[in-house]
Amino acid sequence: MKSSLLQNINSPSDLRVLDEAQLPQLAQELRNFIIDIVSVKEGHLGASLGVIELTIALHYVFNTPADALIWDVGHQAYGHKILTERRDVFHTNRQLGGISGFPKRSESIYDAFGVGHSSTSISAALGMAIASNLKGDFEKQHIAVIGDASIASGMAFEGLNHAGVTNANLLVILNDNAIGIDPSVGALKNYLTAVKEGKNPRQNNMIKSLNFNYSGPIDGNDIFAVTKELKRLQKIKGPKFLHVITKKGKGLQQAEENQVVYHSPGKFNRLTGEIIPKSEADLPPKYQDVFGLTILDLAKANEKIIGITPAMPSGSSLKFMMDALPERAFDVGIAEQHAVTLAAGMATQGMTVFCNIYSTFLQRAYDQVIHDVALQNLAVIFCLDRAGLVGEDGATHHGVFDIAYLRCIPNLIIYAPMNEIALQNIMYTAQSGLEHPIAIRYPRGRGVIPDWKKEYFGHYQKIDIGKAFCIKNGSKVAVLSSGTIGNNVKMALNEIENPEKIAHFDFAFVKPLDEKLLHEIFQKFKFIITIEDGTVIGGFGSGILEFAAQNNYRSNIKTLGIPDEFIGQGTVNQLQQYCTISVETLKSLFLSY
Amino acid sequence: MKSSLLQNINSPSDLRVLDEAQLPQLAQELRNFIIDIVSVKEGHLGASLGVIELTIALHYVFNTPADALIWDVGHQAYGHKILTERRDVFHTNRQLGGISGFPKRSESIYDAFGVGHSSTSISAALGMAIASNLKGDFEKQHIAVIGDASIASGMAFEGLNHAGVTNANLLVILNDNAIGIDPSVGALKNYLTAVKEGKNPRQNNMIKSLNFNYSGPIDGNDIFAVTKELKRLQKIKGPKFLHVITKKGKGLQQAEENQVVYHSPGKFNRLTGEIIPKSEADLPPKYQDVFGLTILDLAKANEKIIGITPAMPSGSSLKFMMDALPERAFDVGIAEQHAVTLAAGMATQGMTVFCNIYSTFLQRAYDQVIHDVALQNLAVIFCLDRAGLVGEDGATHHGVFDIAYLRCIPNLIIYAPMNEIALQNIMYTAQSGLEHPIAIRYPRGRGVIPDWKKEYFGHYQKIDIGKAFCIKNGSKVAVLSSGTIGNNVKMALNEIENPEKIAHFDFAFVKPLDEKLLHEIFQKFKFIITIEDGTVIGGFGSGILEFAAQNNYRSNIKTLGIPDEFIGQGTVNQLQQYCTISVETLKSLFLSY
Repeated sequence: MKSSLLQNINSPSDLRVLDEAQLPQLAQELRNFIIDIVSVKEGHLGASLGVIELTIALHYVFNTPADALIWDVGHQAYGHKILTERRDVFHTNRQLGGISGFPKRSESIYDAFGVGHSSTSISAALGMAIASNLKGDFEKQHIAVIGDASIASGMAFEGLNHAGVTNANLLVILNDNAIGIDPSVGALKNYLTAVKEGKNPRQNNMIKSLNFNYSGPIDGNDIFAVTKELKRLQKIKGPKFLHVITKKGKGLQQAEENQVVYHSPGKFNRLTGEIIPKSEADLPPKYQDVFGLTILDLAKANEKIIGITPAMPSGSSLKFMMDALPERAFDVGIAEQHAVTLAAGMATQGMTVFCNIYSTFLQRAYDQVIHDVALQNLAVIFCLDRAGLVGEDGATHHGVFDIAYLRCIPNLIIYAPMNEIALQNIMYTAQSGLEHPIAIRYPRGRGVIPDWKKEYFGHYQKIDIGKAFCIKNGSKVAVLSSGTIGNNVKMALNEIENPEKIAHFDFAFVKPLDEKLLHEIFQKFKFIITIEDGTVIGGFGSGILEFAAQNNYRSNIKTLGIPDEFIGQGTVNQLQQYCTISVETLKSLFLSY
Repeated sequence: MKSSLLQNINSPSDLRVLDEAQLPQLAQELRNFIIDIVSVKEGHLGASLGVIELTIALHYVFNTPADALIWDVGHQAYGHKILTERRDVFHTNRQLGGISGFPKRSESIYDAFGVGHSSTSISAALGMAIASNLKGDFEKQHIAVIGDASIASGMAFEGLNHAGVTNANLLVILNDNAIGIDPSVGALKNYLTAVKEGKNPRQNNMIKSLNFNYSGPIDGNDIFAVTKELKRLQKIKGPKFLHVITKKGKGLQQAEENQVVYHSPGKFNRLTGEIIPKSEADLPPKYQDVFGLTILDLAKANEKIIGITPAMPSGSSLKFMMDALPERAFDVGIAEQHAVTLAAGMATQGMTVFCNIYSTFLQRAYDQVIHDVALQNLAVIFCLDRAGLVGEDGATHHGVFDIAYLRCIPNLIIYAPMNEIALQNIMYTAQSGLEHPIAIRYPRGRGVIPDWKKEYFGHYQKIDIGKAFCIKNGSKVAVLSSGTIGNNVKMALNEIENPEKIAHFDFAFVKPLDEKLLHEIFQKFKFIITIEDGTVIGGFGSGILEFAAQNNYRSNIKTLGIPDEFIGQGTVNQLQQYCTISVETLKSLFLSY
């Protein structure tokens, strides 16, 4: 084996002294380094493997960090992190206190812009480039690397449309691998494929139409080709666009062949690529699968049901329905705004539309929820996946604002099921003729009922809209939980010796609130605790405060939830502990009464 | 004069029995009808005048309302309303209890989709078209009419990108007049202009690249040309795109020549077109002009200041800076998402960016505020114009959700100035080195200080972040107001005979709250009233409830603001009365203590 190059590269200045002929070896080492660590520590794999050559070439040719390099979304930035002072901490990736799985400004001067949500890179790089012009710095380069799935999102188009009328020193690199997390979709993708395949139009007129200096497509996994083209582009002023073709998962055969699975494969054998199976037989189902199985089951009986996902068929498990009923289940790509208004349009025609969007990504379609759905009182069914704390993806991906931002919208019902049964039943209820739109929020990961599929799946029961329930009686304190965090309350109560003082109520409906039960609770209990896995400001707890104020109740009310700060990465349990909503912290709290 | 055609047209079926040769006369009558009424009753003029021929042709050729016709934004739909059963109520346009200034589903079966915000029409029409396919209705037509300013917004691109891979029976009509409210901008606009002018590329390859059947450009003010082309397209299945060129303001010379002013000209002479001047000499300034004059003044002294508006240079008065310092003030088009992340990118380079967005349109960039600005704690200065009740534009445009949706975002400061002086001073303060992003919300229309420009403009005073003030002492009730609604409190107190019981505090800072003063208030007053012109759910009042709960205060707290329903149109005073936050309703309330 040759001597290691990677071990001597602490920052890109070390890289730039290499001979160009050494770069393929470095690429191989970098690839192996990522595989070695991700195979054990888990994380996003395929995207970073695909851009190894591009990553090296960018830092080799450009003068980072003086030149600004922005990775769209950031799944692909592991190589970048390793080459930029983070090789020796890379094994802490995505862990509590470790480095972030995404580029992050506070982590490194090489991370020019924090990312996580897609399609921001062009706007951010353009902003930097315009600022450089204003400061009289005409040498600085501003580079956005964006995938073909991300560039199809509306925001990216807005950035291109503006950039094309500036003289900004901007280089947009389209990393075209025909896949995001799931395969890319849409007319633009088909067009790019035609360009790649040399079909007419042979050159990318669409990008040229937006007044970019277009070049490509070139092979992005050919490090010499990429280096050469970057050197050429470095000398050209104004908005430039380079189209590179790469292969996601490049260099690990299984990752190349099964790109969806190897986007984030969990632990795997670093040599064979084989995924190390988890023993999952007796575990409760994932909420995602409860959603996926239930919508398919309901759709078989109700032909008005339509499913929509913006680019998350696998993550949301809408894939079950897409495979079985392809004409009624749609992946619209990274287009949350479109997804919501498309659903609204369908709803005007009497269709029953389940629009499944991750909580954090519904922020992208907030206006459409208000203006196109709620204002017209169209009974769209929003399924907000990955609500609450998501764990290792960290601050960019926690779905903790949804209750606060949805609660102020008139006409909208908000429901957070406490378990798998409640999720399937609210889905059943929602499709049997609601008169209002509804947002159903549930977390990433597994439920609490191992036998759900065998014992409960398909045995639907209609839920009374707005009804809350007493789970456990008590004498002194009423704990009002909303959503799956209620299971922490349950477990805490199970684990303390004298739980008699503490009553527990399940307020799955954040809106409308069960005012009848609330009156009973406020008349009986002097101490009220609310708990949710969303922001305490403006959340479910605030709804209870509003009820108390309107009715002039003077109970002592404590609201638990996510504090007023951005929460980083870690396991869900670690983060719940930080937010004092873990089983342990609840136990201590309950014991204090 | 020929006999009136328009008076006999109550619905499109009456129109369809006309001979095609009669359509130009009808167009003339319709134009005159709009001019006659809008000249007296006010409203949006230019957009509707520009599409008179297109409107008639669409209803003449297509079978509305069975065929679905969606007007993007809806400023241009006056002719449509008049031809569809609303001729005799058109004079109630935009008034309390009258017809809406925008298409609205609950108002008419001819209004296939409610609009107001831009760029929703393609997604909505596509949703309808897909639903029709699923229902086996392959005859129904689904038509989206969208302007060249609106089609440049990202959401429209998302709709096109999806439509191009469907076989939906969709017709997108691009109404290309090179202007929205202000002139269109961006690379796409330049491209469309090149297409129009017959320059290469001679045909619209960009649209073809997205797999649309493209036709045009044709003269949209030539009714025979439009009718002919619509008849041809009616027979073609799948996604179609028709590019029509129209002139905004068509038929009223002054409106054609001064398109920005005649977008919504106020009262004018229906024959000469001359605008009837209002006597405005002694009125207080518009908040918009306070913003515009102040940012320009500050920018002259601070070269790091940049101004951004998404398509509202006139409406926001950023135009003052764009005219004087064009290199540092940007109209990015209808691209709120891009505007915010562009600002974030600039802020990373040390620029001081004022990003001016109407409150209701910031809903379009909610994720960018969270993910790109607040999470990175970039000190972008958001100026939220038209916050609160906007009056005649109605439900789609009220800026009443902003406090609720912003309050849950960590790192963000929220400030609502009570008057012109506070607005200029917070702008001054914000640009002198804040360590956090800030949202400054102020309403549409005039302030309260006639002498502001002469006496106060430019005499900046720094504001202590988070500080609230006592405006008036009192013995029993503390009224806590945030923003300009505080002037209603002031007026109400001035008008009642014994105001001694009522104290009044200005909480311009919604976040952070002045906790020191709040402790004093809660220790002194048993009755607290909060008042804001935003939704009571999750708003400023809820922030006060949260403070009270955290500190275990048991005062009686009443929160006033916008109730949990969509508020329609009317004068601001009428709507304030409905929401019980007008001077009159406050007087009664204060007297009840």
